[in-house]
Parts: sequence; structure tokens; C-alpha cells
Amino acid sequence: MYQARIHITLKPTVNDPQGVTVLSSLQRLGFGNADDVRIGKFLLVNVNETDRAKAEQSVTEMCQKLLANPVIEDFQFELEEMPAPRATT
Amino acid sequence: MYQARIHITLKPTVNDPQGVTVLSSLQRLGFGNADDVRIGKFLLVNVNETDRAKAEQSVTEMCQKLLANPVIEDFQFELEEMPAPRATT
Repeated sequence: MYQARIHITLKPTVNDPQGVTVLSSLQRLGFGNADDVRIGKFLLVNVNETDRAKAEQSVTEMCQKLLANPVIEDFQFELEEMPAPRATT
Repeated sequence: MYQARIHITLKPTVNDPQGVTVLSSLQRLGFGNADDVRIGKFLLVNVNETDRAKAEQSVTEMCQKLLANPVIEDFQFELEEMPAPRATT
């Protein structure tokens, strides 16, 4: 059992209107030191595989097929081994 | 100049309907090994401070006042020192 910590971020050249809005809100709230904001997604996905290579391959495909939009987004992830889930009775 | 890498996640006891939807989509796409999905936000905020303690305090306040909803969300962040921005002429 592995847990994937996936970061999905807009490519650096893509505009981030949500980030621009948050930045201007921060400045209006008095955070004059805020300078640039980029907003992405963070996903925790548990993958039921005992083999790290298989888990890695699965997560890569999940990102390519569903989780990220490859046209405008980049993704990266780390895998962390987890204790197996308890058997349910 | 510091860059804060902020993770905002739902508290473990809070339902994540978006995660449930993504999990069922993954399973329908053939990822039978996907087991649990939790979705959060990932923000990169540049903070124009030379002092790490001040930057840390600012980012904590940003999270408490605007970025996270303390009732249902947790936040954590790391600060990374960045080269100062180039002077604009």
C-alpha cells in the first residue's frame, strides 16, 4: 500500500487568474510583502499495490488520464509506503 | 525573499465529496488499485521579507485570515529562500 502525494501546478507560462485575485486580496488585507501567488492542487491518493514500480506507473497514468490537464498543468508526486489496511470483517 | 509552499488540506474528520468523485472516476477508468483520494490546495506565495521569522509569521497570518478555513481545513508550509527579484528600471 502506497500513498501518493501529488502536486498539480499550472505551467509557469500559463496565467493564474485565481492566484492574481488571492494576491490582491492579501494586499488589501495588509500583507504588502506578498509578491506573487500561484495556486495548484494537492492530492493524496492511496494505491493498493505492494510493488513500488507498479504504484508509480499507476499514479503517473492517473495524472495523465484524469487528474492533470497536460496542456496547461504539470504534475509531480512522491510515494510513501503505508501500513496495509486492516482487514474488514 | 522567501517562497512559501503551502499545503491546505481538509481535516481528517471532514467529508471530501470531491475526493469521493475523483476516486469513483479513477475506478471507472480501470484503476482498481486506487483506494482513497483526498483533495487539497497547494499554494506558492512569494514573501518579500529578508527575515525568516517575519516571513513565517506573515504566512501563518495569511493562512489564518484568508487562505485556509480554520473550521474545516488544516494548513502547513515550508519556506524556501529565493534570490532577490531583479530591480526593475
